[in-house]
Amino acid sequence: MNDNNITSVETALYLFPVPLADGAIVRVLPAVNTQLLNGISHFIVENVRSARRFIKKCNHAADIDSMTFYVLNRQTPAAAIPPMLDPLAQGHPMGVISEAGCPAVADPGADVVAIAQQRGYKVVPLVGPSSILMGLMGSGFNGQSFAFLGYLPIDKEQRQKQLRNMQKMIVSHDQTQIFIETPYRNNRVIADIVASLPGSLKLCVASGLTGASESVITQPLSWWAKAKFDYDKTPAIFLLYK
Amino acid sequence: MNDNNITSVETALYLFPVPLADGAIVRVLPAVNTQLLNGISHFIVENVRSARRFIKKCNHAADIDSMTFYVLNRQTPAAAIPPMLDPLAQGHPMGVISEAGCPAVADPGADVVAIAQQRGYKVVPLVGPSSILMGLMGSGFNGQSFAFLGYLPIDKEQRQKQLRNMQKMIVSHDQTQIFIETPYRNNRVIADIVASLPGSLKLCVASGLTGASESVITQPLSWWAKAKFDYDKTPAIFLLYK
Repeated sequence: MNDNNITSVETALYLFPVPLADGAIVRVLPAVNTQLLNGISHFIVENVRSARRFIKKCNHAADIDSMTFYVLNRQTPAAAIPPMLDPLAQGHPMGVISEAGCPAVADPGADVVAIAQQRGYKVVPLVGPSSILMGLMGSGFNGQSFAFLGYLPIDKEQRQKQLRNMQKMIVSHDQTQIFIETPYRNNRVIADIVASLPGSLKLCVASGLTGASESVITQPLSWWAKAKFDYDKTPAIFLLYK
Repeated sequence: MNDNNITSVETALYLFPVPLADGAIVRVLPAVNTQLLNGISHFIVENVRSARRFIKKCNHAADIDSMTFYVLNRQTPAAAIPPMLDPLAQGHPMGVISEAGCPAVADPGADVVAIAQQRGYKVVPLVGPSSILMGLMGSGFNGQSFAFLGYLPIDKEQRQKQLRNMQKMIVSHDQTQIFIETPYRNNRVIADIVASLPGSLKLCVASGLTGASESVITQPLSWWAKAKFDYDKTPAIFLLYK
């Protein structure tokens, strides 16, 4: 497969997933992603530095200085977003690159995709690693019905309420509940869950996905209550089910 | 990248996503998936014929006649599932291959993963195409909170109830609602949604993902009410949001 054999890329907004962990690009991205990337010069990115690093990793010969980067993160004012898509109007294909994982999923990017949809531009989501989906696959939990809830509330009372709601959705709707936490609070969230919910419910912790220390462990809360673990320095995703 | 440069694969249950559409494997799967596949001889599959076709597509030289296939589909009795994992006890890596998309997500496979987890085997989810995730990425809808609900009920009253529940979750929980339908009922489900929910809600239809006729369109229900479309022969995923 030659990385340079696509010379012309159709005008569209391409959504480029980014690796979740260190390691070879071929571990987590299809070859076509790299080929498309090589035909695009205009990017909307969460962080310019890491986007440049990603592009360099996909193609060592990429001429990054000739590329245009628009920054889209939680600080970007709403009014600054629509003009980012102007290159599409001029016929240039564009790429969205986030920090890790899939653009627009638990991540900025959805706003710019929504505007592209309103304007009728073609939007092309590409294949790549998603901790939500890989955690669900590896958990053994119900994949026919599931909800991703983002971050758990930090406030103790709100957090208790959210945990009870999750329990209700598991029992009454047979729905797998998926959420994340800031890595340095991972151990704490497991302790909170163990203290708040019945020991027979199951928790899956998927950590370091696609990396050298990848681990996907599903066990009842009664097991987690006695287990020794340390997830505080590893990105992890949490899944609850019966 | 040489497809044959992995000779020994660690003992684990590997979850292999399968393309959603015709076309080159490099369009949708990382090269590592093919390398791992080449080191595995024991598979749990939804359909032997299509699994053999997938393996041949990944590696024309694969010696399929020397491989062992266990069939896991909706007809498989629960008691038949645990013995399928016996090769793992003997130190053989195993693969799970479903019909299309990601094993164990809107698809059989979760049962065997759950048993592997109970027995403490290593489970390795691999990267590949998921219509749920790619639809969400391309929709421009909220990716911080979303629910996948599987198939809509066929019964008219149940379906109305489900649609109203989805509307409630969108409005009160700011949660994107995702569901599927049997392809020959795709046009019908769009008509039902348009007739049942406010015209200001938005529907995204992502169809033929990763294929030549791929399309991801987000528009208000008032637009869909007047639009001409025909999705009845295309696999599609539906997303609702405000």
